[in-house]
Amino acid sequence: MVYLDHAAATPLDPEVLAAMQPFFTEQFYNPSANYMAAQKTKQALEQARADVAAVLGARPSEIIFTAGGTESDNLAIVGIMQQYPDANVVASAIEHDAVLAPAGQYNCSAALVNEQGIVDIADLVSKIDDRTVLVSVMYANNEVGTVQPIRRVAQSIEKIRGERRAAGNKLPLYLHTDSCQAANYLDLHVSRLGVDMMTLNGGKIYGPKQSGVLFVSHRVQLQPMIRGGGQERNLRSGTENVPGAIGFAKALQLVQAKRHDEAARLSALQAGAFKLIAEKLPGAVINGSRKHRLPNNIHITLPGQDNERLLVELDERGIVAAAGSACSASNEEPSHVLRAMGLSDTDAQASLRLTMGQKTTEQDLQTLVATLASLVA
Amino acid sequence: MVYLDHAAATPLDPEVLAAMQPFFTEQFYNPSANYMAAQKTKQALEQARADVAAVLGARPSEIIFTAGGTESDNLAIVGIMQQYPDANVVASAIEHDAVLAPAGQYNCSAALVNEQGIVDIADLVSKIDDRTVLVSVMYANNEVGTVQPIRRVAQSIEKIRGERRAAGNKLPLYLHTDSCQAANYLDLHVSRLGVDMMTLNGGKIYGPKQSGVLFVSHRVQLQPMIRGGGQERNLRSGTENVPGAIGFAKALQLVQAKRHDEAARLSALQAGAFKLIAEKLPGAVINGSRKHRLPNNIHITLPGQDNERLLVELDERGIVAAAGSACSASNEEPSHVLRAMGLSDTDAQASLRLTMGQKTTEQDLQTLVATLASLVA
Repeated sequence: MVYLDHAAATPLDPEVLAAMQPFFTEQFYNPSANYMAAQKTKQALEQARADVAAVLGARPSEIIFTAGGTESDNLAIVGIMQQYPDANVVASAIEHDAVLAPAGQYNCSAALVNEQGIVDIADLVSKIDDRTVLVSVMYANNEVGTVQPIRRVAQSIEKIRGERRAAGNKLPLYLHTDSCQAANYLDLHVSRLGVDMMTLNGGKIYGPKQSGVLFVSHRVQLQPMIRGGGQERNLRSGTENVPGAIGFAKALQLVQAKRHDEAARLSALQAGAFKLIAEKLPGAVINGSRKHRLPNNIHITLPGQDNERLLVELDERGIVAAAGSACSASNEEPSHVLRAMGLSDTDAQASLRLTMGQKTTEQDLQTLVATLASLVA
Repeated sequence: MVYLDHAAATPLDPEVLAAMQPFFTEQFYNPSANYMAAQKTKQALEQARADVAAVLGARPSEIIFTAGGTESDNLAIVGIMQQYPDANVVASAIEHDAVLAPAGQYNCSAALVNEQGIVDIADLVSKIDDRTVLVSVMYANNEVGTVQPIRRVAQSIEKIRGERRAAGNKLPLYLHTDSCQAANYLDLHVSRLGVDMMTLNGGKIYGPKQSGVLFVSHRVQLQPMIRGGGQERNLRSGTENVPGAIGFAKALQLVQAKRHDEAARLSALQAGAFKLIAEKLPGAVINGSRKHRLPNNIHITLPGQDNERLLVELDERGIVAAAGSACSASNEEPSHVLRAMGLSDTDAQASLRLTMGQKTTEQDLQTLVATLASLVA
């Protein structure tokens, strides 16, 4: 099978599974318990937290383990917004539903993106008013793979903070970035990026499903969403998912250690695929910036085609791809990301998302393009 | 090691791990995707849902997979209460913090329990007023193991519903039960119990940590807490934890299949331990009803003793036990459960929770009591 849906799910890395294994049946203890065996389990959990923190250039106490990217996104939004009933949040128009849906419960405005799928910083800044407490801009988009200018967004926000201080406005203004798709390829150093909160998802980095992290800077006052026993510095209650946290940390270390090599390898495959597409699929349009783009993402519109039919035909030929996010695969709504970039609904429904991964080869992409060419002929 | 803290954590059953294994690296697909491989993964997920539903006598569509008992409890409380800002919730005074903490965000009153640790139904009913939309009473207590009269609570609530209908009060009145500790030993059939929502936790039933279920009757109008891609009938977004759900279902099936045998075996051990305690530890007090009690729970006060010291001494001798819930092990507050039962703080701090499990033997309990006798001598 040619698997080209790594943005939807990645297999667990065998090294990750091996790291998790002792914590299923042997060191299964509740890390909140006081006896020595449980404290040993707790040490392993805290080592995982320190390992994640080291990758992010953060403090261990700034790492909150959650049950996945969606929960982390929700915690970032709700954990701030529920404290400020009269405030508002500004998010880019192409955020994942895991950001847009919780943000939509509050006063929320969407920052425009350009035709290349890159957030318009001037528009974003214009939508930040004196009552804005949170800005959420994803690091890389899950559909078209565009990499957002997070550092520049952070600089703009820092400037607004300065203006607020001068004006005596004491409301905080935080920057959250959903980095679920970025973590395999990009720098996650939170102070280089200038972000206050960052969402990460184990299921997209060859780690366990429903493992995740929310980095929360010590400067941020966050309130919990899930309450109870007070775990995770009272920000996320529930007996800790020890194998999940350990698997997450291992997965993050592994993908970040090889991110330069893997990005270079996939960039070459991506460039080759773009060239092949131009040759073999005349009329095909690559969506999203080619320059500011994850190396594993190919997103094309094949005008006049029906992506549902193409996906079924590809599937029958052993090639697995997607029309958009997996979450939206089962509903009929055209992608809000493609709409925000100005694509017509017809073009959106003629579009395919092809996302490569660690085992993707040049041959896979040749097979893909040749098959697509035969299907649209 | 003599492990007597099964209420805090249970090891993963090797059969459960075996059931999960194929879904880590092989059938790792995102179940929301449309291609055949992903649909096969989705079928496995839906089979797990059907398996859980069968144990509960519920419909598969009434089973929401969550990331554990704490999240399920929160979802039950928040998912109802956020819809009714002027309404209130009544919970027993001995609920887990995973119920009390979210309930505490709303108008909430606590129903008294008697000295035996059993909820006072008359008091509970007296606290239900015309604005009560939710009652939460745990099936079995996590500290003293007392089994609550859920069927009788449900009957009382049904009576109030009838009165409301007659009076034209259209507010719903739902009954939620946290069954995390009950699932190894008690009947979970939701219509026999008469509950509208039930929380279950994989980590307490030899299943994976941070796997859980909220049963939500089709009669209940619930709103989500974690929003995004719309998974779990839009009640719990996030890419599904397929290995977790499959492990949960397997664990639930296994413990429920052997619950009669295991309850009988542990009841005999428990009776023997109570007898031994009376003989070897004069002055020791068994807390909580002996009749309405989980078969795996021994909770004793050793007047004049300091439970922290005893736990350290036991630990050094290879016996692992707890003072209360694991969640509260790291804070200094006396147990709210023991307080509600009328124990003094001094007696609470002289109390031990000993919770047995599948591998506990008579020898373990003899070792325990002999060691305790030597420590308090």
